[in-house]
Amino acid sequence: MLQFGKEALQSQPFSRLLKASLTRFDTGGTELRIAITDDLKQQHGFVHGGVLSYAADNALTFAGGAALGTAVVTSEYKLNYLRPAIGQEIIARAVAVHAGKTQAACRCDLFVVNEGKELLCAIAQGTIAKLPVAPSNE
Amino acid sequence: MLQFGKEALQSQPFSRLLKASLTRFDTGGTELRIAITDDLKQQHGFVHGGVLSYAADNALTFAGGAALGTAVVTSEYKLNYLRPAIGQEIIARAVAVHAGKTQAACRCDLFVVNEGKELLCAIAQGTIAKLPVAPSNE
Amino acid sequence: MLQFGKEALQSQPFSRLLKASLTRFDTGGTELRIAITDDLKQQHGFVHGGVLSYAADNALTFAGGAALGTAVVTSEYKLNYLRPAIGQEIIARAVAVHAGKTQAACRCDLFVVNEGKELLCAIAQGTIAKLPVAPSNE
Amino acid sequence: MLQFGKEALQSQPFSRLLKASLTRFDTGGTELRIAITDDLKQQHGFVHGGVLSYAADNALTFAGGAALGTAVVTSEYKLNYLRPAIGQEIIARAVAVHAGKTQAACRCDLFVVNEGKELLCAIAQGTIAKLPVAPSNE
Repeated sequence: MLQFGKEALQSQPFSRLLKASLTRFDTGGTELRIAITDDLKQQHGFVHGGVLSYAADNALTFAGGAALGTAVVTSEYKLNYLRPAIGQEIIARAVAVHAGKTQAACRCDLFVVNEGKELLCAIAQGTIAKLPVAPSNE
Repeated sequence: MLQFGKEALQSQPFSRLLKASLTRFDTGGTELRIAITDDLKQQHGFVHGGVLSYAADNALTFAGGAALGTAVVTSEYKLNYLRPAIGQEIIARAVAVHAGKTQAACRCDLFVVNEGKELLCAIAQGTIAKLPVAPSNE
Repeated sequence: MLQFGKEALQSQPFSRLLKASLTRFDTGGTELRIAITDDLKQQHGFVHGGVLSYAADNALTFAGGAALGTAVVTSEYKLNYLRPAIGQEIIARAVAVHAGKTQAACRCDLFVVNEGKELLCAIAQGTIAKLPVAPSNE
Repeated sequence: MLQFGKEALQSQPFSRLLKASLTRFDTGGTELRIAITDDLKQQHGFVHGGVLSYAADNALTFAGGAALGTAVVTSEYKLNYLRPAIGQEIIARAVAVHAGKTQAACRCDLFVVNEGKELLCAIAQGTIAKLPVAPSNE
């Protein structure tokens, strides 16, 4: 199942641009990692919020997809930034808190790894929808 | 003021990676544009949600910064995807709905331009905080 | 259509407890009003956030219901408080920004009326879902 | 500390109207309970979303207040409804995930107790702000 997820992630050009990798993908949760390079920063040298948003959005989608067992899209999500992301790697860990017939509610914790230490830098919560009822079919 | 905003945006390596440009920046609102290239897509050929998230986050930040008149960070935001973003350009328009002493509440509409026609593809709402009271100072 | 909405609101015991009234209900938008009584306050004499949340949630639901033309439930929403609600009446105005096949994305502005003057005191954004695909059917 | 919290809750007229009680209040988390009565329902016999919103908002506020150790207000929050709340009691459990100098990010799980069994019926995430920098001081 992880291999399937890895291929899905690699099929996204934007995920390749950010060099994201999927390191866990099962019904118990999802983990996505991004090595921090200069390209991913904002003007103060921290990881740009857009990178954390990408990681949260994608980790939530994979967590919802694993829980619903089908193709899905993120319907909506919310993100709180907690501290500047300074370090070598971003880790986004997401889990489906509840899965219904057509959508799943998921949460995500985002960590920055700095010299081997994980620090929580953002948290997210969102809705993942099966494709047949998703906005993208309209 | 627009020139100041453009330079701020260009000082963000991640904004340069995504080739975002600021086309409006005043107290009445902010507009950020991104030309859609293959690099910014997901596996179905739509613009990746992470790109829309980046655009929403950054447009909200600039709108809050214009309203508060100082250096700011996005504290939190929420995004609803409405339809697949298919076209040539993304436009994010944000406005500060309310500005207090230390933070501003902002909204953002995200459009995809397809053959000259703007279509609303996502909406966002969030909190922009002045830097001295922001999480990044802790 | 307004009469239909008024009856729907009155069929909710909690809406009767809060003495909420529907003053607009059409595809262009929804307006819900609550007279501020001592029962609806918190310890500092402001309207309790829970009352504003109720008003936002219900106004969003009615706006989504008007747009989708069917029975609906609120799937999720987000609320930003802007200032203390001090005055005589709460007005929640909501509109569907986008309606798809199964859900609508809606926004709500909440005002407090103080000596005849309306002041924006909170803003909300959320997803309203048709009942057949809603969580409540699972 | 629990006694202090109980008195704070009882000082809120709206919390008395809903007969909410605080059953945990320490830096490890907060628990708020509401017995389900007919007054708190919507037209289908489920607990009204506004009641769950109130419970989430208040539990988040108390969790943030415990973490920040001072008077606080809810700045913003987001709520996902997961299933209809049918049963005898609502329990809202909240925890501060991160506390900075001026605000805390908190999460809340909402359960409905039906014949002794707890079922997760909603989840929330929000920002709790210290009063000196809160919107209510503006």
